[in-house]
Amino acid sequence: MWGSPWRVVGTGSLVRRGSSSTSSRAPEVVLTHERYPVQRLPFSVVSEEDRAAFERMVPGRVIMDPEELEASNVDWLRSMRGCSKVLLRPRTSEEVSHILRYCHERNLAVNTQGGNTGMVGGSVPVFDEIILSTALMNQVISFHDMSGTLVCQAGCVLEELSRHVEERGFVMPLDLGAKGTCHIGGNLATNAGGLRFLRYGSLRGTVLGLEAVLADGTVLNCLMSLRKDNTGYDLKQLFIGSEGTLGVITAVSILCPPKPRAVNVAFLGCPGFAEVLQTFHTCRGMLGEILSAFEFMDATCMQLVGRHLHLASPVQESPFYVLVETSGSRAEHDAEKLSGFLEQLLGSGLVTDGTLATDQRKIKALWALRERITEALSRDGYVYKYDISLPVERLYDLVPDLRARLGPRAKHVVGYGHLGDGNLHLNVTAEAFSAALLGELEPYVYEWTAGQRGSVSAEHGVGFKKRDVLGYSKPPEALHLMRQLKTLLDPKGILNPYKTLPAQA
Amino acid sequence: MWGSPWRVVGTGSLVRRGSSSTSSRAPEVVLTHERYPVQRLPFSVVSEEDRAAFERMVPGRVIMDPEELEASNVDWLRSMRGCSKVLLRPRTSEEVSHILRYCHERNLAVNTQGGNTGMVGGSVPVFDEIILSTALMNQVISFHDMSGTLVCQAGCVLEELSRHVEERGFVMPLDLGAKGTCHIGGNLATNAGGLRFLRYGSLRGTVLGLEAVLADGTVLNCLMSLRKDNTGYDLKQLFIGSEGTLGVITAVSILCPPKPRAVNVAFLGCPGFAEVLQTFHTCRGMLGEILSAFEFMDATCMQLVGRHLHLASPVQESPFYVLVETSGSRAEHDAEKLSGFLEQLLGSGLVTDGTLATDQRKIKALWALRERITEALSRDGYVYKYDISLPVERLYDLVPDLRARLGPRAKHVVGYGHLGDGNLHLNVTAEAFSAALLGELEPYVYEWTAGQRGSVSAEHGVGFKKRDVLGYSKPPEALHLMRQLKTLLDPKGILNPYKTLPAQA
Repeated sequence: MWGSPWRVVGTGSLVRRGSSSTSSRAPEVVLTHERYPVQRLPFSVVSEEDRAAFERMVPGRVIMDPEELEASNVDWLRSMRGCSKVLLRPRTSEEVSHILRYCHERNLAVNTQGGNTGMVGGSVPVFDEIILSTALMNQVISFHDMSGTLVCQAGCVLEELSRHVEERGFVMPLDLGAKGTCHIGGNLATNAGGLRFLRYGSLRGTVLGLEAVLADGTVLNCLMSLRKDNTGYDLKQLFIGSEGTLGVITAVSILCPPKPRAVNVAFLGCPGFAEVLQTFHTCRGMLGEILSAFEFMDATCMQLVGRHLHLASPVQESPFYVLVETSGSRAEHDAEKLSGFLEQLLGSGLVTDGTLATDQRKIKALWALRERITEALSRDGYVYKYDISLPVERLYDLVPDLRARLGPRAKHVVGYGHLGDGNLHLNVTAEAFSAALLGELEPYVYEWTAGQRGSVSAEHGVGFKKRDVLGYSKPPEALHLMRQLKTLLDPKGILNPYKTLPAQA
Repeated sequence: MWGSPWRVVGTGSLVRRGSSSTSSRAPEVVLTHERYPVQRLPFSVVSEEDRAAFERMVPGRVIMDPEELEASNVDWLRSMRGCSKVLLRPRTSEEVSHILRYCHERNLAVNTQGGNTGMVGGSVPVFDEIILSTALMNQVISFHDMSGTLVCQAGCVLEELSRHVEERGFVMPLDLGAKGTCHIGGNLATNAGGLRFLRYGSLRGTVLGLEAVLADGTVLNCLMSLRKDNTGYDLKQLFIGSEGTLGVITAVSILCPPKPRAVNVAFLGCPGFAEVLQTFHTCRGMLGEILSAFEFMDATCMQLVGRHLHLASPVQESPFYVLVETSGSRAEHDAEKLSGFLEQLLGSGLVTDGTLATDQRKIKALWALRERITEALSRDGYVYKYDISLPVERLYDLVPDLRARLGPRAKHVVGYGHLGDGNLHLNVTAEAFSAALLGELEPYVYEWTAGQRGSVSAEHGVGFKKRDVLGYSKPPEALHLMRQLKTLLDPKGILNPYKTLPAQA
């Protein structure tokens, strides 16, 4: 109850996605082409001569050591495994251009890789594609103090960019659990949503420009730093969200909003999903423009972060939990709005327990409960992941439905996500991958989503795992145009093959 | 001074752009192909048989009356004139599809027209293109009260949509001077910016989906209503800002933010442009998340709205004027923030006079001063219009520079615009069009802009008038890719020819 002392959990540092924290206990990951029905396309195989050519282009940065390659062949969910024999680490767009021109000429397939934190198998090779890593393209090019415009190379780590701009009084317009590892170029290629989407909107609005290298090595410089630019077609949009299949993003220009002076986080327990929705409705009305996040998680999520990560719940056990964040320019105004909101919730019975954090340490601790769910799930076993957009009123219906459908065949079925954006993360865990369980889940989940006119990929993208389900959210005319665009920009199909577009029938 | 009574001007109703208010006094507009060096492309000419076919597709809605055609052949700036002989008024996307399939087959060129309020000659035919009007496609399809998602046909007038959503507690994410006439489909095709851009961002973020009919008649349904959808390439972005050259937008899904409970407008006089910039800086710091517009205009703009529209300045004569709008959820908090901001300005001498409006009528009157500048300019004579993005520190430099350069050859040289977005509207008036004066202005203005790495079209688009200056803001590789996209989507080039893309050498 509100009368009880406000408890706050300890700060746990986020384990970096992409690190090999789980590899010691984990079994070998099955090769993707052994698990899934996929045929290698007739690309060339990297020869001794090719390696020598690459060595001339990026001297000392041609990686062939099997152990080093292992980390880049396997995705961080440990659900996919390629067998690439070569990883390249260019430092400049010119080097990327040389590499692609050569690969295009030689018909060699290329898999661009940022922080390798993707959820849909888009960032690792499926067969022996050359891995083009952006890890060494990690320089900030400029930051403009007046406008908040950051220009940087694609391999900059999101958390480092956050630090850079925060020191200058701004924040990055996006934030996500994988921030310690993911690259900004990968964020754009995925069109990542994340935790600040509700407030600052999509990357399609906040990205001001980008530079991309096309399949044939052409450098396309659209690295503008202007808020408005209507000089013809907005070419940068082609590369945002196309997962490296139309070009390699090498640099980014992004608009950073001013750093809010006051940030508050409330963590609340709700007795049911109807109350979660009502809380959201009340919240939008009373917090208005200072609302910066509205996240929810179910009781099973809380149990799993407790069991696997030893994070304690800061509030009484509840069927649902809500995290509300406010960000504003005047602390006392925000506090007044928030206390009015919390009083209203208390009076109405929408919330049964809650805690409020205003200092940085406690705020981080509360956010960790939400941000580390993905990590907790990955420690629970093999994870079947669904990331869907739905009308907000129906957002949770599928979770109890699936629990009943799967029964004891699933270890856990959980639902959490960005309620404010109508975005559900639906996850099912099991001891190991099983084609039978997959058959229970798919196409059922996709059909259910299509029935609500939802999206079968809200923010995680398509990658390898979702490429054959696009038809649930896109009409045939759209898939046809996607293919035409792919053929126009990458006629030989060398860029991130087997991804994003449906496999040809 | 602040001590003086706060004066507020009378409400003037906005004259609708596109209406023929000026036509009685204005001379005949010269045919575009007589004023500009442009050759008709080898499209077919509309025959009797074609007209009969159209009559079967849109019975009773094939317009051939010369007077009715006149209004659609001439742009509202009265600077361009086509000689189309046929105007079609479809009601549904199916009718648009039939029309385009037929035109594609017959190699007939088509000029899509919304409210005909464009600034760059994009909305009127250059020769005898068929005019495809969206005027009868004006139905709201749905509005979702929980999410604020509006779905409507492309021919809905912006102001009517505003009214529709405001009655339901929301606002349109865009607003512009031409709202009484412009169509939402035209807004998207232009990627219009406008007066709320600073707060709600670009249409690239707020548009959730659209339906477009391709050149061959294919209906592409991307009319999703979800905040997040990463199922493959974001095809809708191709049509936003491409001015009807890649397809005809027939329906729109757009996210409307909640209507702010409190709106305030301050109108301020500043002694110099440095003070305007300082006022903006102070404003962002002190008003933070409630700032919804920061517009500026110079003294000449105020003189022209006074002379031509009889609007009186609400503050003492000043070299510059600033309009600051706040929109928030709690009136007393906003008032407190605003009064702190105004006190700070008073103390610092950044502002020499000001007035504040909190009620709807006065707010409208203050906005009219800024919104009606375009109209005042059009009554001042022939207008050479430039709409450029620049680093905000350099935003005004070009205006005095041009005054010195042109001397008495120009009637007036004025600068105003969306300072918060780095967007200058630079306008030069003269008694009549003169190729010599144009030669003084161009390429000078474009070269100057390119020298600052600015954009030669911030929000008005390219249309016919700016198509040959894209190279000042876009590299050759980008222009090449634009052409490839055009060829892919409209291989015969029938959609809005002579627009957006540079004329072929």
